[in-house]
Amino acid sequence: MSKAKPPLVRLAEMAPGQWGDFFALLVERTRGARRDGKPFYTCKFRDTLRTATCMIWSDGDFFQACEKDWQEGRFFKIRGTFQEHPTYGPQIEADAIRLATDADKTDGFDPLQFVERTRYDIDGMYQELWTLAETQISDVPLRRLVLTILERQKTPLKHLPATQKHFYPFAGGLLEHLLSVTHTCLHLVDKYVGHYPDLQPPLNRDLVVAGAILHDMGRTLELSDDVASVQPTVPGRLLGHLFLGRDLVRDTARELGDVNPELLQLLEHIIVTHLSLPEWGSPKLPLVPECLIIHHADDLDAKLEMYIRCLTRDKEPGAFTGRDPVLGRQLFKGRQV
Amino acid sequence: MSKAKPPLVRLAEMAPGQWGDFFALLVERTRGARRDGKPFYTCKFRDTLRTATCMIWSDGDFFQACEKDWQEGRFFKIRGTFQEHPTYGPQIEADAIRLATDADKTDGFDPLQFVERTRYDIDGMYQELWTLAETQISDVPLRRLVLTILERQKTPLKHLPATQKHFYPFAGGLLEHLLSVTHTCLHLVDKYVGHYPDLQPPLNRDLVVAGAILHDMGRTLELSDDVASVQPTVPGRLLGHLFLGRDLVRDTARELGDVNPELLQLLEHIIVTHLSLPEWGSPKLPLVPECLIIHHADDLDAKLEMYIRCLTRDKEPGAFTGRDPVLGRQLFKGRQV
Amino acid sequence: MSKAKPPLVRLAEMAPGQWGDFFALLVERTRGARRDGKPFYTCKFRDTLRTATCMIWSDGDFFQACEKDWQEGRFFKIRGTFQEHPTYGPQIEADAIRLATDADKTDGFDPLQFVERTRYDIDGMYQELWTLAETQISDVPLRRLVLTILERQKTPLKHLPATQKHFYPFAGGLLEHLLSVTHTCLHLVDKYVGHYPDLQPPLNRDLVVAGAILHDMGRTLELSDDVASVQPTVPGRLLGHLFLGRDLVRDTARELGDVNPELLQLLEHIIVTHLSLPEWGSPKLPLVPECLIIHHADDLDAKLEMYIRCLTRDKEPGAFTGRDPVLGRQLFKGRQV
Amino acid sequence: MSKAKPPLVRLAEMAPGQWGDFFALLVERTRGARRDGKPFYTCKFRDTLRTATCMIWSDGDFFQACEKDWQEGRFFKIRGTFQEHPTYGPQIEADAIRLATDADKTDGFDPLQFVERTRYDIDGMYQELWTLAETQISDVPLRRLVLTILERQKTPLKHLPATQKHFYPFAGGLLEHLLSVTHTCLHLVDKYVGHYPDLQPPLNRDLVVAGAILHDMGRTLELSDDVASVQPTVPGRLLGHLFLGRDLVRDTARELGDVNPELLQLLEHIIVTHLSLPEWGSPKLPLVPECLIIHHADDLDAKLEMYIRCLTRDKEPGAFTGRDPVLGRQLFKGRQV
Amino acid sequence: MSKAKPPLVRLAEMAPGQWGDFFALLVERTRGARRDGKPFYTCKFRDTLRTATCMIWSDGDFFQACEKDWQEGRFFKIRGTFQEHPTYGPQIEADAIRLATDADKTDGFDPLQFVERTRYDIDGMYQELWTLAETQISDVPLRRLVLTILERQKTPLKHLPATQKHFYPFAGGLLEHLLSVTHTCLHLVDKYVGHYPDLQPPLNRDLVVAGAILHDMGRTLELSDDVASVQPTVPGRLLGHLFLGRDLVRDTARELGDVNPELLQLLEHIIVTHLSLPEWGSPKLPLVPECLIIHHADDLDAKLEMYIRCLTRDKEPGAFTGRDPVLGRQLFKGRQV
Amino acid sequence: MSKAKPPLVRLAEMAPGQWGDFFALLVERTRGARRDGKPFYTCKFRDTLRTATCMIWSDGDFFQACEKDWQEGRFFKIRGTFQEHPTYGPQIEADAIRLATDADKTDGFDPLQFVERTRYDIDGMYQELWTLAETQISDVPLRRLVLTILERQKTPLKHLPATQKHFYPFAGGLLEHLLSVTHTCLHLVDKYVGHYPDLQPPLNRDLVVAGAILHDMGRTLELSDDVASVQPTVPGRLLGHLFLGRDLVRDTARELGDVNPELLQLLEHIIVTHLSLPEWGSPKLPLVPECLIIHHADDLDAKLEMYIRCLTRDKEPGAFTGRDPVLGRQLFKGRQV
Repeated sequence: MSKAKPPLVRLAEMAPGQWGDFFALLVERTRGARRDGKPFYTCKFRDTLRTATCMIWSDGDFFQACEKDWQEGRFFKIRGTFQEHPTYGPQIEADAIRLATDADKTDGFDPLQFVERTRYDIDGMYQELWTLAETQISDVPLRRLVLTILERQKTPLKHLPATQKHFYPFAGGLLEHLLSVTHTCLHLVDKYVGHYPDLQPPLNRDLVVAGAILHDMGRTLELSDDVASVQPTVPGRLLGHLFLGRDLVRDTARELGDVNPELLQLLEHIIVTHLSLPEWGSPKLPLVPECLIIHHADDLDAKLEMYIRCLTRDKEPGAFTGRDPVLGRQLFKGRQV
Repeated sequence: MSKAKPPLVRLAEMAPGQWGDFFALLVERTRGARRDGKPFYTCKFRDTLRTATCMIWSDGDFFQACEKDWQEGRFFKIRGTFQEHPTYGPQIEADAIRLATDADKTDGFDPLQFVERTRYDIDGMYQELWTLAETQISDVPLRRLVLTILERQKTPLKHLPATQKHFYPFAGGLLEHLLSVTHTCLHLVDKYVGHYPDLQPPLNRDLVVAGAILHDMGRTLELSDDVASVQPTVPGRLLGHLFLGRDLVRDTARELGDVNPELLQLLEHIIVTHLSLPEWGSPKLPLVPECLIIHHADDLDAKLEMYIRCLTRDKEPGAFTGRDPVLGRQLFKGRQV
Repeated sequence: MSKAKPPLVRLAEMAPGQWGDFFALLVERTRGARRDGKPFYTCKFRDTLRTATCMIWSDGDFFQACEKDWQEGRFFKIRGTFQEHPTYGPQIEADAIRLATDADKTDGFDPLQFVERTRYDIDGMYQELWTLAETQISDVPLRRLVLTILERQKTPLKHLPATQKHFYPFAGGLLEHLLSVTHTCLHLVDKYVGHYPDLQPPLNRDLVVAGAILHDMGRTLELSDDVASVQPTVPGRLLGHLFLGRDLVRDTARELGDVNPELLQLLEHIIVTHLSLPEWGSPKLPLVPECLIIHHADDLDAKLEMYIRCLTRDKEPGAFTGRDPVLGRQLFKGRQV
Repeated sequence: MSKAKPPLVRLAEMAPGQWGDFFALLVERTRGARRDGKPFYTCKFRDTLRTATCMIWSDGDFFQACEKDWQEGRFFKIRGTFQEHPTYGPQIEADAIRLATDADKTDGFDPLQFVERTRYDIDGMYQELWTLAETQISDVPLRRLVLTILERQKTPLKHLPATQKHFYPFAGGLLEHLLSVTHTCLHLVDKYVGHYPDLQPPLNRDLVVAGAILHDMGRTLELSDDVASVQPTVPGRLLGHLFLGRDLVRDTARELGDVNPELLQLLEHIIVTHLSLPEWGSPKLPLVPECLIIHHADDLDAKLEMYIRCLTRDKEPGAFTGRDPVLGRQLFKGRQV
Repeated sequence: MSKAKPPLVRLAEMAPGQWGDFFALLVERTRGARRDGKPFYTCKFRDTLRTATCMIWSDGDFFQACEKDWQEGRFFKIRGTFQEHPTYGPQIEADAIRLATDADKTDGFDPLQFVERTRYDIDGMYQELWTLAETQISDVPLRRLVLTILERQKTPLKHLPATQKHFYPFAGGLLEHLLSVTHTCLHLVDKYVGHYPDLQPPLNRDLVVAGAILHDMGRTLELSDDVASVQPTVPGRLLGHLFLGRDLVRDTARELGDVNPELLQLLEHIIVTHLSLPEWGSPKLPLVPECLIIHHADDLDAKLEMYIRCLTRDKEPGAFTGRDPVLGRQLFKGRQV
Repeated sequence: MSKAKPPLVRLAEMAPGQWGDFFALLVERTRGARRDGKPFYTCKFRDTLRTATCMIWSDGDFFQACEKDWQEGRFFKIRGTFQEHPTYGPQIEADAIRLATDADKTDGFDPLQFVERTRYDIDGMYQELWTLAETQISDVPLRRLVLTILERQKTPLKHLPATQKHFYPFAGGLLEHLLSVTHTCLHLVDKYVGHYPDLQPPLNRDLVVAGAILHDMGRTLELSDDVASVQPTVPGRLLGHLFLGRDLVRDTARELGDVNPELLQLLEHIIVTHLSLPEWGSPKLPLVPECLIIHHADDLDAKLEMYIRCLTRDKEPGAFTGRDPVLGRQLFKGRQV
């Protein structure tokens, strides 16, 4: 006799012995062999806050599906009982396991709940970036260019990290970064326009805002939009986000047809030079002052995120964090002030 | 019969044939010899806008003084007639020449009028920096530390460039740079305190403001306070402005006696690491996030000044400036937008 | 009474005292002043083999035109007498001087005769490169892509150097370089296809030929097509020939519409990575083996040209050349074998 | 009762339960201890295609020999039964194990069968390289020099890899590399002799061929000629293959006595500079153009081999290979064209 | 019935089955779990020559103390029986375990006996360094400055290594290094004073001796004075030993009040520049010749120690050591001469 | 009537109007032209302390010889009158000028008197170096090797600088450097043999002494032995002094036949690695500790010489020297202590 349909629960909230339906990400699947030579799989499933093991024995129901179809990085819907084993830790005794589908989203399945994500509201950030473009770029064709690109890249913008592993490496991180850099750039360009009133032509505010919003837009093409496992795309590896971002700008501008060619050229130059030096990835040096504003706002925002993430997560004893592999240093955390 | 005392004029405003008293800086003094073997000196004097030549012959009144005492980089009071020679250009026929003295300042002699200087009001900038320290640093002993240093370094702060040749290389440039960096840092720290509300302890606003005001204060000891010819000092070359700036902070804090030792330690760390990398002059890497804010605000402000000065002064034909020897690149100036 | 119309001659072939019409390039124009203060210009005109001076006095016929209109790097038609001055060298006593026009080309005026140029026949080289593309690229759409670009860039291809100062710095040099690199690449790809028969897919011969022909095609947009004075263009400096060359390929392919997208992507990757390392100007590393063939064929051809030009032109006494400023070394020329 | 003498078989071809004599390389020998404290050895033996484990227990016949005499990297003759254990994989139950001897070679034992080796016929390649030297070097004493060295280094040339781990890291790899580089150099020198007919003296074809054959000949002294475990020699580590290769050339030339001293000097220069830059291992920069041909032919051939080996062997899922530790990059393999 | 008080022994000297009291350092403490889920700790204790395991079971007397209080890097007084287990090696069956205290030092407990230390007598080296300062510095105030610092830093000087992991990484290593460098410097300065008799002022012998003794004195503040576990201090990481060493000199000189300011300035310059280059940690280049002597004596002494330690301890088979991670090379040890 | 034969004098000691015979070095020979177009030569001759000009007019006796035969860097015997011109300075009015010959040496002509040279007695230094080799190298064949090389390179050793422009750039400088380095090395090896008594085999004293004497012996082949104009030789530029020095050692050892092969190998390794890093010119890293002693003794001695020469000769006003082009820094000279 089959059990009744269980309630939809969260893996992280299940008590030992509790039975339920839940969604989980398959993060590890390892083949082993028993003493008698029979094979089995050790599968680890997790949601944001808990990882639990599910043993798939060769004589069980799921062995064949596990061997042939299950892949790490996919979501599953699982029906089963949660247990805490004293030695082996959290376990799942599964009654049913199947791949999650788009249809499950109506049941409340949201992949973003299973991966690390920005602390900020993604839709709100997207809307804020849109509003900045709409209200702060006075040149109409340039504004339309930026808004068109924002519209078209909306989906990856809302899912992607800024980078796979370096800075803002979590869902929505790219958007969080672009928004932060754009705010900083707006402040800086206004400040320096005032400081250098005699420069002719003056620092171009529109260009700085557009450059800030678009400087890393190529990352929406450099990274695959797969929530559970962000990877570089083929064009991302073969060309890189500088080329891909400029393509977006150049193609869209050509299609729209009315962007001032000089503005477009400078905007492309800003995208291409925002990493500042060849050894940092920009094949040309910045030749207009607007580049500097975007480069520094970008670099500061990225490095600060790395520092603060490192400080926040570190578990080392003592006054210093463990050596951060990206930063190559041990930060100071033993402070009261 | 001697002439009457002439009016006090400016060299740059004298018409050909006009007689008057004026102050000027000796910028070049070259020994030559006539065909008959008699020596002479070609001296070039200038004020801000005009340079004129004064020939000192071996049988004239000033030869001995010129040979023994006159040094390039010194100011002189000159009585004489201005002429425009068709081939040799502006000339001075001198009746009297003597070193300018402090007493001449009551006559309106101001060395800052003879050198390149900031476009901004120096006293106003100093007051503004003071007010920032007074109002934006909440920790009382730290605030007193900053104000004490500002007070003590007031004189060189008001005269010195930020650097001899690289950025803000003109009188008052150091003050202009410090003020600009402090404003930027204030904006950035407020922004990022808001962005990372969970960081414990939060980004320290007092520390950022104090670090911004003091990060280059060592330059007041690194450069000689001689308006007409700024040179590195002996301690400046033997130790550098990172050590000298930290000395100012450490010694003053010790004297005041009440600065929180942890705050002081972090402030010293910020000064020592504000150049970010060993190859850029900082022997240690930044280990707290506040360093990043100061480094980027500083570096952007310095580089922007270099770019805009280069763009403003360049005389090359074509769409690009001549190669800037400090920046190592030719900037783009052929733009309408 | 005016003289009869003189014969059209070459400056380099005029005997002292000979009168004639000739074309020449203004290579230097310096203002001077006589003792009495009157200004004059010393103008140096040259054709390929001789440089002669023409003095333009303030009371002569050409002074006003010289002061206002004449620019270095322009061609002039001159009527005058050639002289050899014992001290001052070759001189022109001019009866008439005016800017050369396009109409003069029917008179036999050919700017390429006045600048340094390739030893090879330009039209022949262009035809040979065309034929290589036509016969050696088997994929039809890819072949059409290459031929279309060759057709459209024909004019600059026939005039431009490969680089302004580094390698093949003479008219037609770009074509000579592309042809040489393509021949080398053809040999190498055939050789290595044979050496690695098991590679799947095999080294792509079409891709190597197309990459060889197009790798530096961006230089046709990076350098201005002005025979007498090749300069970087604005896009050349703001984006560089890697971006500009890929644009040519990408835009033309899009227009043609039938190029295999994978082939196109790899061709773009080859263009972008042909400088091999970020510090040499390629923001991405080569990720397919075809890149290596093009990089090495290109680099060898460029360096050999520099070596052989340096060895051929050097005038230093002794067994070694003077220090070549681009190569940074003194080559060995004191050999018999 | 002892078994009859079994047939000579290959380990890789034995069926489970099959008994036979075979040769194998000891690749791992690890000491362990049982629960009761008794020691044992786990030995792994392999031929080209299979690795099998042989347990050596403390109370068995081979324990003493294993503990004292057996070394990894040596070949053994084994008599035993092959088994496939469900959990522990391929096993050998040994009846007899002894070190392989030179005498075994008459039995068909060939060490090259147990290590990775070139796909090409080694004797054929050696003969081909010899023929190139014999037919393509016109200067008789230089030709004799090259042939003499080829003759004397024949044995290591036929066994050694080009490098221990970087490129052509398999038996016969050095020969394969030298042959490939020489072919490329021959093509390039003929091409460029034609391209620069005015160079005096012309590019020296003999020198290029000799340099290509000899440039890495020092590796025959840098690496130990031990098929199963190639290691750097003491002179290899203390001096390196540049010095050792030049020694070979210099000593042999001195012995032969008739090599043109200028040719010899240039040949030595080519060997010493073929790595092109100090940071790549050449203490002097190339000062004659022939060096460039050899450097580029060498570098391309080495890098291509690394790329193609990486592409061929990679097992990573996805469009890119795993990160190659020598190349420091992930190559693109997800292509159809 | 409790046993009698056992004799005080050394762990390294205990025979299997022997019972006694001894001091030992806790070097590893790992939590495990039995099959039944009960936790336990595996603790490894060692003195200089032996490491033994002590199992702490959850139902034993020491479990709670172990879980809460025991830390790696601390010393303990242990009463127990030593055993040799055939598989698991040396074991301690403990009757009592408690933290060692200062009071135990009267019992003969000396932490230096448990860590690696200099082969030389520490008190003797300290006395020798003192005597060098006293007899070889002729300038009285400078001599007093050096002696005062030696006196005040006596405790850490006698315990600390020169560096945590790079050179002289053992207790007393800093003293051994300073003494060696000072002897070398004395020899070199005397030699070069004689070689350059015309230099005005001559090489300053006092300065060299003082610089040699004090150049690394900042390390007494950079490293924590905890014998069992030397770690960088907070000021050590935030400022580094160059700043900290100069502070010691500057503060002490200010307190003493009579050091010649010029001497003091040069001494500070020597400390700050003794690493010679920015990328090696000195933000300023050496500007007086005395710096060179100290830099080279220091660098040679440090590197030699690293070489000789590596050669002495290496266990690799063959003629070369394993790759030293600090030196980044494999040293040659297969020599007879 | 010809004058009587004048006395042999020194140019530097001639009074105005004095007539005499003297030897001088032609240091500059420049062609000029008079207003009437007639050519002339301005020749500058000097001995150690004075440079004087001799005008060679086209209608004078020496014009033809000057035009055809005179070369800068050659010595001449001149008969003439010395004059001091008020504007043009020291002049020679020549009666006779001819190339100096070997025969003139009997007249007291010594080229070393005309060039900058070591302050020390060259023969004495050579003898001292010889004695060090003879008394301090205990291994008889090694000692004979060193003495043989010293004997054979005696002539260049006594004339050459250590380097053309970098350190000890004056006649006898190489000998002065070798002697100084050898003394330092002797001290250091004795010191460190004592410090590391347990090293097996101990630091090899013979090897250090031989390495010190021979490390730069390749410079005797790298530089041409032409007193008046030292230049790199062809082998010097094509191979460099590391290869050439090792050749000397290797060839001589082979000829002598009895040097211990291990000692020889290490001696060669020391020569090859004495520059320590590839980017400093050593293609291999030092793998035995003896290398370190020689590297540091060598580098310190070279740098000290550069510092002291720069300090001694500098003419800049102020506390710092002008920027030394080799050292890349401005040294501190404004000191009293």
